Amino acid sequence: MEIKLAKNYGFCFGVKRAINIAENSQDASTIGPLIHNNEEIKRLKANFNVDTLKDASEAKDVKKAIIRTHGITKGDLNTLTKSGTKIIDATCPFVTKPQQICKEMSEEGYDVVIFGDENHPEVRSVQSYAKNGAKVVLSVRDVDTLELRQKVAIVSQTTRKVEEFLKIVNYLCVNYKEVRVFNTICNATSENQDAARDLAKEADVMIVIGGKNSSNTKQLFSISKECCSDSFLIENEKELKKEWFKNKNLCGITAGASTPDWIIQKVIGKISKIKV
Amino acid sequence: MEIKLAKNYGFCFGVKRAINIAENSQDASTIGPLIHNNEEIKRLKANFNVDTLKDASEAKDVKKAIIRTHGITKGDLNTLTKSGTKIIDATCPFVTKPQQICKEMSEEGYDVVIFGDENHPEVRSVQSYAKNGAKVVLSVRDVDTLELRQKVAIVSQTTRKVEEFLKIVNYLCVNYKEVRVFNTICNATSENQDAARDLAKEADVMIVIGGKNSSNTKQLFSISKECCSDSFLIENEKELKKEWFKNKNLCGITAGASTPDWIIQKVIGKISKIKV
Repeated sequence: MEIKLAKNYGFCFGVKRAINIAENSQDASTIGPLIHNNEEIKRLKANFNVDTLKDASEAKDVKKAIIRTHGITKGDLNTLTKSGTKIIDATCPFVTKPQQICKEMSEEGYDVVIFGDENHPEVRSVQSYAKNGAKVVLSVRDVDTLELRQKVAIVSQTTRKVEEFLKIVNYLCVNYKEVRVFNTICNATSENQDAARDLAKEADVMIVIGGKNSSNTKQLFSISKECCSDSFLIENEKELKKEWFKNKNLCGITAGASTPDWIIQKVIGKISKIKV
Repeated sequence: MEIKLAKNYGFCFGVKRAINIAENSQDASTIGPLIHNNEEIKRLKANFNVDTLKDASEAKDVKKAIIRTHGITKGDLNTLTKSGTKIIDATCPFVTKPQQICKEMSEEGYDVVIFGDENHPEVRSVQSYAKNGAKVVLSVRDVDTLELRQKVAIVSQTTRKVEEFLKIVNYLCVNYKEVRVFNTICNATSENQDAARDLAKEADVMIVIGGKNSSNTKQLFSISKECCSDSFLIENEKELKKEWFKNKNLCGITAGASTPDWIIQKVIGKISKIKV
């Protein structure tokens, strides 16, 4: 039986990079959990003594603090810098970008609008870089209530859907003289979904690896199931069942955004030993 | 019988302004016909000795040249300036704006896209202000063939529909990192149409004044007819018929974009004398 991985799966570029940084920062502490996967956080603690802090307020008491992918607010960064703690910045470059745009556009006199969830750490970090504050919106109705001047700049939370972003952009373009649109959406989620769909169409059996309560993993599983009825969702290799692979020629594999590669490798290792 | 004018009708701001400029420029010559209404051009010749030239090449031989609402190319303007001809600029401010945007954005290193008809004088004048040329597109298919860098600026021909403009904007926002959107569409046409619709809903009889071969006048007539079955399209007051107004309480009036006020006033004068 052939085993084939989806063209895109699992961790995005920013998460892979952050874990690599953590692995190279023995004895450091991350401000908040580095990723939403306890197995991986346990591994970083066991192998590299990387601790997890509750928030930025605890960081001033440690020697080395790792800023996680979605960044921290400018205020927290300033406090941390003054405290003398060594700062290791694992902010995803796709988040640093909207932070900088927010800063520059507000300095140039644009009213800055952020499309996203105002309670999300990434959005709060981006928002904090605007000189006179940025407005956070989730819908056209939200934008409609804003009092903006005629020059508007807009960025997006990286994980939003582009179709929703365009609704806001269109509203702004109709109502304001100049709109500077920075499409800061990262394609990782949609790329994983597209790749899962493509692979499921040709596979006889599909294995989707990820948390059973993970929203993006469940979406991947649902997409796989649509195209390949023999699709199975597992959290680790222990859940694999031999009978799934009987008389199958091609086994497709994909994984949710919070699934580390080493879990995926264990799954592949076990499947490759199954005699079909 | 009450006579009521649509909230918006006839000449737009830029055309009114150009005619006012021509009236104050005795013995001048316009580069191309000032507006597409021969009666009005005859009137300007008869009352103010304002001639009409074929194009910019003829302008160097006259003392005073009037630039019409949609402007001329930067090249023609330079030639004219050097010739010593006195230049009277009646370019609509809504066209001067995209000319300036084209200039500034190309100087700042943006690839400039113009949504419009590449053969239209307004578009050619706007395009000529881009430092290294601007791309003119009418559809997403046109944009798709362009090779643009990641920073794009877009303006629109003033008379385009905003829905079509947004299709191009959306395509750019999905495919390019930064898009500076300048909504340079003038609302005059859609405002006239909205106002005609509103008035036709309450009127017993609607008079639409304008050229019978004028596209925008025909659109106004069609909208009026939808809401008021007793709608009539006339070019001047001579075409009015008494029986149209029998037992009517409210006569609504609107006019196409190329219909001068003095023709509208003659129509109103004659209707007000009709006994219903």
